[in-house]
Amino acid sequence: MKQPDIFSTQVGRRRFLGVGAGVAAASAVGAVCGAGAGVNSYDQGTREAAGARAAAGAAAPTPAASSDHSMPASTVPGRPKASGKLATVYDAALPALDSSPKKAIVMESKDAVIEVAGGVLFNAWTFEGAVPGKVIHVRQGDSVDFTLKNGSQMGHSIDLHAAQTPWNINYKTILPGEAYSFNWKANFPGVFMYHCGTGPVPQHLLNGMYGAIVVDPAEALSPAREYVLVQSELYLKQAADGTKWDGDLNRMLAVQPDFVVFNGAANQYQQQPLAASVGERIRLHVVNAGPTLFSAFHVIGAIFDRVYPDGNPANVLRGMSTCTIPPGGGATFELVIPDAGQYPFVTHSFAYTGLGAVGLIETT
Amino acid sequence: MKQPDIFSTQVGRRRFLGVGAGVAAASAVGAVCGAGAGVNSYDQGTREAAGARAAAGAAAPTPAASSDHSMPASTVPGRPKASGKLATVYDAALPALDSSPKKAIVMESKDAVIEVAGGVLFNAWTFEGAVPGKVIHVRQGDSVDFTLKNGSQMGHSIDLHAAQTPWNINYKTILPGEAYSFNWKANFPGVFMYHCGTGPVPQHLLNGMYGAIVVDPAEALSPAREYVLVQSELYLKQAADGTKWDGDLNRMLAVQPDFVVFNGAANQYQQQPLAASVGERIRLHVVNAGPTLFSAFHVIGAIFDRVYPDGNPANVLRGMSTCTIPPGGGATFELVIPDAGQYPFVTHSFAYTGLGAVGLIETT
Amino acid sequence: MKQPDIFSTQVGRRRFLGVGAGVAAASAVGAVCGAGAGVNSYDQGTREAAGARAAAGAAAPTPAASSDHSMPASTVPGRPKASGKLATVYDAALPALDSSPKKAIVMESKDAVIEVAGGVLFNAWTFEGAVPGKVIHVRQGDSVDFTLKNGSQMGHSIDLHAAQTPWNINYKTILPGEAYSFNWKANFPGVFMYHCGTGPVPQHLLNGMYGAIVVDPAEALSPAREYVLVQSELYLKQAADGTKWDGDLNRMLAVQPDFVVFNGAANQYQQQPLAASVGERIRLHVVNAGPTLFSAFHVIGAIFDRVYPDGNPANVLRGMSTCTIPPGGGATFELVIPDAGQYPFVTHSFAYTGLGAVGLIETT
Repeated sequence: MKQPDIFSTQVGRRRFLGVGAGVAAASAVGAVCGAGAGVNSYDQGTREAAGARAAAGAAAPTPAASSDHSMPASTVPGRPKASGKLATVYDAALPALDSSPKKAIVMESKDAVIEVAGGVLFNAWTFEGAVPGKVIHVRQGDSVDFTLKNGSQMGHSIDLHAAQTPWNINYKTILPGEAYSFNWKANFPGVFMYHCGTGPVPQHLLNGMYGAIVVDPAEALSPAREYVLVQSELYLKQAADGTKWDGDLNRMLAVQPDFVVFNGAANQYQQQPLAASVGERIRLHVVNAGPTLFSAFHVIGAIFDRVYPDGNPANVLRGMSTCTIPPGGGATFELVIPDAGQYPFVTHSFAYTGLGAVGLIETT
Repeated sequence: MKQPDIFSTQVGRRRFLGVGAGVAAASAVGAVCGAGAGVNSYDQGTREAAGARAAAGAAAPTPAASSDHSMPASTVPGRPKASGKLATVYDAALPALDSSPKKAIVMESKDAVIEVAGGVLFNAWTFEGAVPGKVIHVRQGDSVDFTLKNGSQMGHSIDLHAAQTPWNINYKTILPGEAYSFNWKANFPGVFMYHCGTGPVPQHLLNGMYGAIVVDPAEALSPAREYVLVQSELYLKQAADGTKWDGDLNRMLAVQPDFVVFNGAANQYQQQPLAASVGERIRLHVVNAGPTLFSAFHVIGAIFDRVYPDGNPANVLRGMSTCTIPPGGGATFELVIPDAGQYPFVTHSFAYTGLGAVGLIETT
Repeated sequence: MKQPDIFSTQVGRRRFLGVGAGVAAASAVGAVCGAGAGVNSYDQGTREAAGARAAAGAAAPTPAASSDHSMPASTVPGRPKASGKLATVYDAALPALDSSPKKAIVMESKDAVIEVAGGVLFNAWTFEGAVPGKVIHVRQGDSVDFTLKNGSQMGHSIDLHAAQTPWNINYKTILPGEAYSFNWKANFPGVFMYHCGTGPVPQHLLNGMYGAIVVDPAEALSPAREYVLVQSELYLKQAADGTKWDGDLNRMLAVQPDFVVFNGAANQYQQQPLAASVGERIRLHVVNAGPTLFSAFHVIGAIFDRVYPDGNPANVLRGMSTCTIPPGGGATFELVIPDAGQYPFVTHSFAYTGLGAVGLIETT
């Protein structure tokens, strides 16, 4: 199916999925129109004023919105503002599986600056220098020698939701410059969260220390285009340097996220959609890293023919449009898209969707 | 089983399920006692004072509550107050299925004033003049020619969770006075949300642009009394005329709903319960339109012998009391009630239940 | 497997799972180190200041945290502060099943003072003097003569999620000094909430009137070590005596819990872990009593080989790490732990985890 220039007749689309319309135009459109991805921001303190502007803007007839084509700067003081494109987009493709049944995985904790929205730099605590950390991809039955190296300034640890292993022994905190190894066996297939489990855990989560584990079932699933998506919330406060941002425990405790993202950056898969072919089976391994919110995962214009809660093929739901993923949990979603076009994936919990939780699947 | 006059001995029931007891008596009882349906209101700004009164009232021995029989006016300034009965109750019956496998459905966007609680008038954006919009009822395998007509003052669009169709093509925004048609095939049975997908989506959702799609499975389910319930949150602010209410994006972003309702109006099925016979199979097709909250759907005094997540009969849970429905999702609930009486349906997430999310099933 | 002294090398663990690190050290560690269980507190009003301290503390290298071994007093004024050990720990073992198919259960409502965190005394409304109330344990098919006696100062009622019975008849409010009996049949196996249903229901829930019902399936499950866990939120305000605490409807409506607990007291199963043997089947019957939050139930270091939504064996999920339990709902979790050690159970929704929702399973 040919993909038309939808914007010649679709001015209202330019503000698609935005929050606070008058404050910041929709990021979906900025990206689709080539004007750069971004995300809307808003401030709790000045919310009344911002909201009034937003509502007024939204209530205006759609043609008035045609100037929203580019991404205006937020007028709300004190909150992070997205502007322009991301320098890099996190590769969502599931990494190839190493076929050896005995694996050695080394993960190093590292402090790193991460671009979490266009131009918004976050002083993150990470695994392997990325948020989320690198994907761990193993196969059911594999024996994994896992090593955590601490390359950071404080103690960290690992908590692998795919493993059965004593918390008080193998998830202990490792000091800077030290390392610790243990072996675990991938007994259960699925998609699982991993994260730092050093207290206070919320502090380590909100600073970026999480990622996904995909355990292929012993009996392989059908071939598919496979992607990994980690949903998470970002809670930010201005860093001491006045330009970058630190994690903000206060906003986390009050459940007031600045961004809700897939794979660490707001709206990045609008800038660079996930590709698939018409009629091809797509398999999305989705982890909800939280730290707090439940996800209502949905792909607009598509239906999941199979959903595996926790990614285990023994658990199958058919014909689903929207599924709950608890924080700390995961699910694998399979779909086949019959027509060429763009299909946004979101959390359908709309107080949060516009904060960056909109990506695109593009079929050709 | 004979249904006694429960109120001769049940004074405490008069404040059933209310929030802010001293502020507003329970609506369940107002309706049951014939004193008019309504809903409690409360204000974030004066919450401390209101709460103190509420707690004091609630802590008093039940006999003191006997004056709560009627619906006192809220004493909280600035928030919408329910008073009296609704002029009309939304018909929850599942509309009959047109047996033709090829259907033409026309949906027109229209601005309309909706009574969302007794005497509380909402300047809504709607499909077909109602909130929720009219129920779309088709059968698995049907081919549907769908036309969206824009009879409103701004651009709108459609997003049908039951359809597989490109977002960037068929869910595009239609300008006032224009129309757009496309065909989709109902490949998956179940209960699905539809809504306006024009950005900012939260603005169009909170203003009332959503409804339910029921796709009967190709192999018919057993005969049942079938109802459709759409749960949603209402976020309001005083309209310019000083008497009606507009949607409030600020309250939506802060997740501070004024009302949480089934089929668009607070507590309406207390005023006019859903009827069923003792021993009859009841099938509730429930959509959670959000925009943000998860539903914990429950019927007091009953157990669902079957729950179909997303309404798909391939997914069946047995013997459930309470189920999560994500915003944007749906589920079909089947139950048989062995005794005559009243059975309230609620979301069991109790910060929100008392805001209007209490209806009654009445069996005879 | 021998259990090493993990704390010789694990100083960071001392603040495990805490919220507001600089404000209050982690309770997991207090207990594990024998320094007394407790829970962190924080205040919404002074959150900015507290958070700044917390972040500063958390950002310090782990060795600096070694003084967190004991439980410092909260510096936040006006909120409940945990200190020291609980005088008693709620017995989480599933009570033995009375084999008679005809049971008589009497439940009396009683006001009682409950220690909900070390040294924090709560003026509770209870069933049978405990929060949660005593566990009701019956078998599928049982006929139950249930009597509610009102030994309190106000009207109360019962709502049994395991029963099919008319709300308006058998869940009516009983006045102080009175009693009411009705019969119900346990038609569905599983784990269910019970609670007081007198309005305003949130007031009766937040004051402690809830508990769990376990209905064994007619065909018995395999032998297991069985525990019952009721998750709930506590919303508190200073009582008139200036030392104890009352339920606070304002905080409940704003969803700002002071504690989130299993079986009524913060972190109590750190003080006295749930015991199990290596390789033994463990069965956790979990009710989420809310009143509002959804639970993301998880055991750190373990995987559930079977999860039964609502506790019904007809509904089985395999290989789950984290599951959603709606408020008002329940689920039964089975797991086998292959190694000796400590395995914390939590809600993985981390804005709430550190408020007391961390217990330990200890295998030997």
